[in-house]
Amino acid sequence: MTAKSHGSLRVVGLGPGPSAWLTEEASQALATAEHVLGYQTYLSRLPELAGKTLHGSDNGDELERARHALALAAEGAHVVIVSGGDPGVFGMAAAVFEAIEQGPAALRSLDIAVVPGVTAMLAAAARLGAPLGNDFCTLNLSDNLKPWATIEKRLSLAAQADFVLALYNPASKARTEQVHAAFDVLRRHRTPSAIVVFAKAVGRPDEELLVTTLGAADPAVADMRTLILVGAASTRRIERPLGPPWVYTPRRSIEAP
Amino acid sequence: MTAKSHGSLRVVGLGPGPSAWLTEEASQALATAEHVLGYQTYLSRLPELAGKTLHGSDNGDELERARHALALAAEGAHVVIVSGGDPGVFGMAAAVFEAIEQGPAALRSLDIAVVPGVTAMLAAAARLGAPLGNDFCTLNLSDNLKPWATIEKRLSLAAQADFVLALYNPASKARTEQVHAAFDVLRRHRTPSAIVVFAKAVGRPDEELLVTTLGAADPAVADMRTLILVGAASTRRIERPLGPPWVYTPRRSIEAP
Repeated sequence: MTAKSHGSLRVVGLGPGPSAWLTEEASQALATAEHVLGYQTYLSRLPELAGKTLHGSDNGDELERARHALALAAEGAHVVIVSGGDPGVFGMAAAVFEAIEQGPAALRSLDIAVVPGVTAMLAAAARLGAPLGNDFCTLNLSDNLKPWATIEKRLSLAAQADFVLALYNPASKARTEQVHAAFDVLRRHRTPSAIVVFAKAVGRPDEELLVTTLGAADPAVADMRTLILVGAASTRRIERPLGPPWVYTPRRSIEAP
Repeated sequence: MTAKSHGSLRVVGLGPGPSAWLTEEASQALATAEHVLGYQTYLSRLPELAGKTLHGSDNGDELERARHALALAAEGAHVVIVSGGDPGVFGMAAAVFEAIEQGPAALRSLDIAVVPGVTAMLAAAARLGAPLGNDFCTLNLSDNLKPWATIEKRLSLAAQADFVLALYNPASKARTEQVHAAFDVLRRHRTPSAIVVFAKAVGRPDEELLVTTLGAADPAVADMRTLILVGAASTRRIERPLGPPWVYTPRRSIEAP
């Protein structure tokens, strides 16, 4: 065996906010890494990176970053590539496996593992109560990598099936129209009283939770750090004297319409 | 202020398996608890519970357990109620908020928080690669608390929309027919080549991952510790020489049919 065979790649979920949402497995993977790749924003949040080679990036080319990480691991290095939230939910994991499938066959023998994390919808749900307490669908509203027709069809059928919806990546600086189009679809299938939550920067110092309804919601409040939750017909709010309302979806569902 | 006003309730996600998947926030909540409630199976996995009052239970009456936890907190105790995985995904959180809504108004002033965790589908996805790399739906196949017609409608529309599916609670000792009925629905809308994974006891010593297809799958292999993943049309497998295949769903979706 040569040194090359000892390389490894861990695709690590950091959770959506503070280090208190990091798992022990994620902390250990970071502690033993020689190279750490990821968005500069995420790297700058990590506490203990002394002695490691950091590869911060400001661009959105996940496939390029995945290839870089795989190349370093193939050369024998212990490599971590970080993802906000969970790497398997609209994070770096899919890009890594795309790069493996498209790359040289030797990559398939590398020591590769994904380290799961708390994805944004779970953190937002925890803050609110239990909005995901019944069946739900999770959609990425970005049409950078898929046709809008696919997103529209999925939104429409998920709304008809009365799933709770968790909508990731509703908008960015360059992409502001999709969230309005998405709400147009939702309004065709759900009543105006359906509960809608805009959860911004959950777990960060500037966290904001806005609980409203489909009838009253202004989709323009969503930005690239916002997760949108849309309740099912059964989703309820509980008012409380000392804080924003709780939002939860009972375990019992009403009969299919 | 009386001592009563100092009670607290934390609804804590333990992740699906080893303590390495526990978050720091969950560890801290357990460390400061005076009372810990939950399934006996989960309590017996926890390492450091000396000096705490444990309330292990073997039955499935989550609402009763939630009421007990709220009553202890209302009396001024620091209470933790544990949930496998994430408490917000078919765990204890919804039961707690049902109990709050149905209980005395004073419960709405209690110090209550949900501590998120790694839910089973994220852990199973991490083991497999990135099967949740595109839009997905999460369904609880148990019809103990909702009509089968609702489950069938949701499965049918989610399959038509080409979501990846994560199916929780496919079967139990007393409930063995639903998973067969669910596969009948899926086979009407998805091709036999669709990738299906039975992920059993992920993160436990007896973990098993079975990667198969909708055409070849035998739903009878699912039990109460199994999570089922059903791929989208675009979900792929990558064979590798030293282990089971990777399974991932590319970020690019194909056009809506």
